[in-house]
Amino acid sequence: MREIKVGLIGFGTVGKGLAEVLLTQKERLIRRTGMSIRLAGVADHSTAALPDRFSSVSLTKNAADLITDPDIDVIVELIGGIEPAKTFVMQAIAAGKHVVTANKALLSEEGAEIFAAAAARGVEVGFEASVGGGIPVIKALKEGLVANRILSIMGIMNGTANYILTRMTDEGIPFAEVLQDAQRLGFAEADPTYDIEGIDTAHKLAILMTIAYGTPITHKQIVTEGISQIEPMDIELAREFGCRIKLLAISRNHGDHVEARVHPTMVPQQHLLASINGAYNAIHFQGDTVGNVLLYGLGAGMIPTGSAVAADLVDIARNIACGSIGRVPALSYLPDQMQSRRITPMDELYGPYYFRCTVLDQPGVLASIAGILAKYEISIESVLQKGRKSAGAVPLVVVTHSARESAIRGALDEIGRLEAVTAPVVKIRILEEE
Amino acid sequence: MREIKVGLIGFGTVGKGLAEVLLTQKERLIRRTGMSIRLAGVADHSTAALPDRFSSVSLTKNAADLITDPDIDVIVELIGGIEPAKTFVMQAIAAGKHVVTANKALLSEEGAEIFAAAAARGVEVGFEASVGGGIPVIKALKEGLVANRILSIMGIMNGTANYILTRMTDEGIPFAEVLQDAQRLGFAEADPTYDIEGIDTAHKLAILMTIAYGTPITHKQIVTEGISQIEPMDIELAREFGCRIKLLAISRNHGDHVEARVHPTMVPQQHLLASINGAYNAIHFQGDTVGNVLLYGLGAGMIPTGSAVAADLVDIARNIACGSIGRVPALSYLPDQMQSRRITPMDELYGPYYFRCTVLDQPGVLASIAGILAKYEISIESVLQKGRKSAGAVPLVVVTHSARESAIRGALDEIGRLEAVTAPVVKIRILEEE
Repeated sequence: MREIKVGLIGFGTVGKGLAEVLLTQKERLIRRTGMSIRLAGVADHSTAALPDRFSSVSLTKNAADLITDPDIDVIVELIGGIEPAKTFVMQAIAAGKHVVTANKALLSEEGAEIFAAAAARGVEVGFEASVGGGIPVIKALKEGLVANRILSIMGIMNGTANYILTRMTDEGIPFAEVLQDAQRLGFAEADPTYDIEGIDTAHKLAILMTIAYGTPITHKQIVTEGISQIEPMDIELAREFGCRIKLLAISRNHGDHVEARVHPTMVPQQHLLASINGAYNAIHFQGDTVGNVLLYGLGAGMIPTGSAVAADLVDIARNIACGSIGRVPALSYLPDQMQSRRITPMDELYGPYYFRCTVLDQPGVLASIAGILAKYEISIESVLQKGRKSAGAVPLVVVTHSARESAIRGALDEIGRLEAVTAPVVKIRILEEE
Repeated sequence: MREIKVGLIGFGTVGKGLAEVLLTQKERLIRRTGMSIRLAGVADHSTAALPDRFSSVSLTKNAADLITDPDIDVIVELIGGIEPAKTFVMQAIAAGKHVVTANKALLSEEGAEIFAAAAARGVEVGFEASVGGGIPVIKALKEGLVANRILSIMGIMNGTANYILTRMTDEGIPFAEVLQDAQRLGFAEADPTYDIEGIDTAHKLAILMTIAYGTPITHKQIVTEGISQIEPMDIELAREFGCRIKLLAISRNHGDHVEARVHPTMVPQQHLLASINGAYNAIHFQGDTVGNVLLYGLGAGMIPTGSAVAADLVDIARNIACGSIGRVPALSYLPDQMQSRRITPMDELYGPYYFRCTVLDQPGVLASIAGILAKYEISIESVLQKGRKSAGAVPLVVVTHSARESAIRGALDEIGRLEAVTAPVVKIRILEEE
């Protein structure tokens, strides 16, 4: 029986998960592929010894031992971050090894160089695990929806942020408190910046846009706002307007230019994305032939991510066995068919907005605010003024019809400068139903 | 440039949709595959002429003209039903053509013979379009979730039935009225039996079970109940219990035996399947590595189905170009690794139940019913008796804790024979949360 030998760099949570998956699914993979996919070696600088059940797996502190091992067919990179991950991946490609990685930061920043090197060397780069954990979203886009122009991508792509927002919504407790609890429970990392500030979501959106549109995108091109400024009051007010607040990645394909943004968004309760709770992810595509498609599942985790890495290994194993390496282009479009596109400037976007001002409860305030909105040609859908609070300041909430972002920004700047407005204006975009 | 020539048998709604998709996506498919996938010929006994934009496509009334054409690489069968579809598919395989079909009735009844013939002849059979329309659910199961033991399959797999139930729920109108309207609007066929009686759903569940478990299943092994007996009163009562009624396909993998059933089901409102409305489908898998995954989209329709057929054509085109025919086994497991499994007899299943009796409003009725339930060791979660109706008969609703189906059947038989029970007892199973 043919054996495909895997070298694993990084034996942290996800690396351990992959090792477990390859062990528990070994017989199943043989029954499905006729091949054995064997973990041959692990490189990790901090692992003293492997558990007994991995007795046939070699352990080294030096990734180069795996990369230069002529017996190894595929290198799996699961250390994360840019360096030394990039060096290892580029060395593996140069050595003629296929590569599988879950590293969304690396691919969204350095993907162009990596994929070009792999294409030139004739090796595969699998990255199903980089977006949506075990959800087969990359395969769905590249293969299942191959006969589609993708018109939009929308999704909840970070389980930590969604877990925090869900608990804030269900329990009415503030962000900082939920974050602390999430860290204690292992749902958030010690440094949660990437998750809560939307950066991880932007990495994933950049990868999806690249393969959906055939357009190289890096996460630096994506306007990114996180959830750390969301207050329980806004979650409660969202509910009154029939919405839930979610950290969404949103991209729309306008042909010569494409939208790309990550920010907290008010999602109407009847939209399926409003029902995605806890650590779950969901990614919604609109295709010109398939219409609306949504894929849902755990977006991270030791074992689910192993499911995606193993699926990539099976694809590569089958291509090795069939002599069909390069059968599906890594980025869906052939390398010479990638097209660069302009990113729509944020100022040019349209949509409905929610904003909340803290105003002194005195005559004329609403007239001033309404006057400023009128000047910027922003039309109001509803206004809500809550009862008097301490110190005479009350929240005044406005929901607008679709307005241009630049107009909203101009108006909110002016409103923020009113004397009767006593705190920074909070602005949250509302998801426009297609 | 390499050209893959397609012969299409059946130019009804779905066939026309495929022709449109191959036309509109032609350039995109070239940019993604480097190949041209061309509709070379159409066979349809009732089509007088093809629209002008298909001027390069030959038209015949005789499917054999395509099957015997040495230029044609792939036969797409989109006529539906068992015969003559089966004959055409078997002839195409014998002639060494690859086959793509959306025919769930054919595959769930005659799949074993068809897949065996294709494996023996070394040709591919693509059937992504047979389940879930354009949703890439077959590919997700066979490839994306390859490193999973599938523990359960649950889904809304028939858009017509879901459309009818959604309108009954939202508008409170009776089944027959919604069905008529659905027929008028084109959401239901003139003969809707397969859709509303759950047969179409059972076809699809049989296909999914076969590839998920590596176990050949035909729809005849699946206990199937439709939605034509559902009354607005039950939908309203379901709402009071926090549920929505959905036509679900349910299968659980117990190892040596597997559950398989299609019936109206009360789905708790917080379950994602309760939020799937209108003509949409959603299919939920639980895998031992990936956990819960759900795929959502339009389950039918002219163009969405074309998206799935085109994806199968691309897979086959790539395998032709790479010399990798047979790269992924048609049924996910290698043919010699398929294992037969016992279907769990319905009587052995456990779950919570809702039932509604129409009883005379007189003393002692509840005592009799409660006594019968106690005798069968069925424990009650809640009882609801509605106000007096005309003629002295009132609905009495019972929700049970998890009970054995055989016990429920025995108890309901006895209850139905009580003198004070004036109409047949209505029983609806409740989805048990995992």
